[in-house]
Amino acid sequence: MSDNSSRDDLAPVAGNGLLHRRLFLKTGLTAGAGLLVAGRAAAEGPDRAPWMRAPGVGMGPSGAPSPFEEHVVRAPVGSQPGTTGAGVSRTPLQHLDGIITPSRLHFERHHSGIPQIDPGEHRLVIHGLVDRSLSFDAETLDRYPQVSRIQFLECSGNSGALIAPNPVDADCASIHGLISASEWGGVPLSVLLDEAGVQAEGKWVVAGGADAAVMSRSVPLEKIMDDAIVALYQNGERLRPSNGYPMRLFLPGWEGNASVKWLRTLKVTESPAMTKDETSKYSDLAANGQAELFTFPMAVKSVITSPSPGLDLAGPGVYRISGIAWSGGGRIRRVEVSTDGGASWAEAALDEHVLPHCLTRFRAAWRWNGGPATLLSRAVDETGAVQPTRDEVLAGRAPEAFYHYNGIQAWAVDEQGASRNVYA
Amino acid sequence: MSDNSSRDDLAPVAGNGLLHRRLFLKTGLTAGAGLLVAGRAAAEGPDRAPWMRAPGVGMGPSGAPSPFEEHVVRAPVGSQPGTTGAGVSRTPLQHLDGIITPSRLHFERHHSGIPQIDPGEHRLVIHGLVDRSLSFDAETLDRYPQVSRIQFLECSGNSGALIAPNPVDADCASIHGLISASEWGGVPLSVLLDEAGVQAEGKWVVAGGADAAVMSRSVPLEKIMDDAIVALYQNGERLRPSNGYPMRLFLPGWEGNASVKWLRTLKVTESPAMTKDETSKYSDLAANGQAELFTFPMAVKSVITSPSPGLDLAGPGVYRISGIAWSGGGRIRRVEVSTDGGASWAEAALDEHVLPHCLTRFRAAWRWNGGPATLLSRAVDETGAVQPTRDEVLAGRAPEAFYHYNGIQAWAVDEQGASRNVYA
Repeated sequence: MSDNSSRDDLAPVAGNGLLHRRLFLKTGLTAGAGLLVAGRAAAEGPDRAPWMRAPGVGMGPSGAPSPFEEHVVRAPVGSQPGTTGAGVSRTPLQHLDGIITPSRLHFERHHSGIPQIDPGEHRLVIHGLVDRSLSFDAETLDRYPQVSRIQFLECSGNSGALIAPNPVDADCASIHGLISASEWGGVPLSVLLDEAGVQAEGKWVVAGGADAAVMSRSVPLEKIMDDAIVALYQNGERLRPSNGYPMRLFLPGWEGNASVKWLRTLKVTESPAMTKDETSKYSDLAANGQAELFTFPMAVKSVITSPSPGLDLAGPGVYRISGIAWSGGGRIRRVEVSTDGGASWAEAALDEHVLPHCLTRFRAAWRWNGGPATLLSRAVDETGAVQPTRDEVLAGRAPEAFYHYNGIQAWAVDEQGASRNVYA
Repeated sequence: MSDNSSRDDLAPVAGNGLLHRRLFLKTGLTAGAGLLVAGRAAAEGPDRAPWMRAPGVGMGPSGAPSPFEEHVVRAPVGSQPGTTGAGVSRTPLQHLDGIITPSRLHFERHHSGIPQIDPGEHRLVIHGLVDRSLSFDAETLDRYPQVSRIQFLECSGNSGALIAPNPVDADCASIHGLISASEWGGVPLSVLLDEAGVQAEGKWVVAGGADAAVMSRSVPLEKIMDDAIVALYQNGERLRPSNGYPMRLFLPGWEGNASVKWLRTLKVTESPAMTKDETSKYSDLAANGQAELFTFPMAVKSVITSPSPGLDLAGPGVYRISGIAWSGGGRIRRVEVSTDGGASWAEAALDEHVLPHCLTRFRAAWRWNGGPATLLSRAVDETGAVQPTRDEVLAGRAPEAFYHYNGIQAWAVDEQGASRNVYA
């Protein structure tokens, strides 16, 4: 086919083969872009495969993925030594696209496993500095006003592997898989606390879970009254047990641990409770030995999910770069991509849905010439916050401080088309 | 608790107990609304249940719903007599909330079952009035520019049961369950057809599937070049087999049948092919004996999913009314709700995400007095199109014409709190 790459729309816009994002945004700009990776076809279509010669499988009450996609699972799954449920499983980001995470693949972080809760026996109690203590079961809560919103949830330990002095040899899920996005539906906590009547001294709310660890976090009342919900629904159906069935706290944009699962108590207090889960864990140690507590919002961040380790390029030619960006600060404003290790940058195309406190899918077209390349992405949110470099993130931190890591990820592509984690 | 219902925000805004939608939209308006359905609690929280006394279940590669939610499945499932895969299964709308349909619960409509396709052996061929015929496998397509959008898919036979002279005794899924919404991701067809080079005479594209029925539909080229995609991803992961794995056509806002699953051929033609699937089926018979062909867009529509048959009210008090609205014409602009059979109407609250060609979740607060009530919803889309009454839909139709039924649904609530389908 013809090569009109001298047209402005089709000329590289940054070093090492990055093409203009308009390729993703408009119709009619691709003719002559030299994108062709398909093969020529016989004029009248392919032969009939065996599955066209007999009726297929019938309808059923609940569907499943194709057996050819069995490799798309949460991985790696890891529990701390000597425990049966204190650990994580990770979303396989490199095999997904778009912004929704299927509920079966939502990451997990549990502190003593998943309690198997009978919703008829579970109650949420609101007590402490309130005019009247209240008790709710899931059926009662479902009668209240509700909202639903598509939002991310990220463990504050996500990407913490990148504090290591030398780059770990690991794939995108292993490093960054503690983030997922779902539609979360439930009752605004402002409605329930209005009904309980918060007293003037009430400034914090201590949330406790019905797991064996009684995972508990203190949350400022202001956040609770702003946009917190008691979530009952995840991606349209009731919460999965691994995400807090029958109810969980959900705090948009804040570290996942504070969105207490299997929510059992909300106690209104004057001060934070200083629970084990906000002192020994989930606090940020500085190089000077002091620890910051209650660093709730997740910072602006992005990662290229494809290409990435394990997804080898098939040879020189055009590829789509695809990735996710997000910020606890609100909407993503812009994502830039580099394929030459940061020497030059091009603006990525953002998918149509750019929602607050949600994953935003970004994409770029890239003509790989078969040589070494280093792929980076850098997100900017609507507050103007810019995703930092690794050096900027680590400055002033204690060497073992791994929470809230949001540095730019670099994937090095070698001449065989294989990618690996590097510091660039 | 106090009853301040004389406050403007809390006074009924329509007959039979409908409260103002501001209850869903703002903080601080509910105090004194008399919403209380929770019980008073002992001050220090509930007792520890058995699941708090031992570690729970560990993490795993793929999650599942709670065993207490086993009733949430596609139902009813039905195949035509003598066939093993010509039929439907329906999304259990009355058990869901929000706008995303979990992929395992997406409705099905197959004409000869689900082919079990090996993606390595499957090809999409673009041919006919093009400069060069092209052949794509899924791996090749995945290298092309892609987009993703959250959009509904509705079978044009959905709700057709309501043409019956007498109201069927059936639940929300049985009547309306042939609609679902997902994030659909894939390659814009404009990109692929630009590469093939559509010739000047090309005006239609005939899409054929790799099922044993070779389900085939003719689609105007204009739609194909506007917003059609070859979908590879559904809710973040690869398409489910029941939704066309490894690739399907997706036509936003158009009748589901035209979004050909297991897409195998796209032939550019001068005229529609008049396939069996667009002549004997999926055409609209008028009372005068003439049939309309190619009535693609799905009209503006809504349905209350809760309360609805099978979801009995527990006794007089406050309930949330929840439902879905959608339109092939674009975004939903407004939904109105009545609880007195249409004598008076109140505007419903819309959830935050009001997306084009997508389900929009609407909600209203209702104080049921324990007497008979008839619940209706009526949607208006951004073009100004208003959802019609049943009589308006049926005017001029042949008695057996059941496609494209979008009339207002009425649920009658009796004094025991049970709902049933009625014509009102």
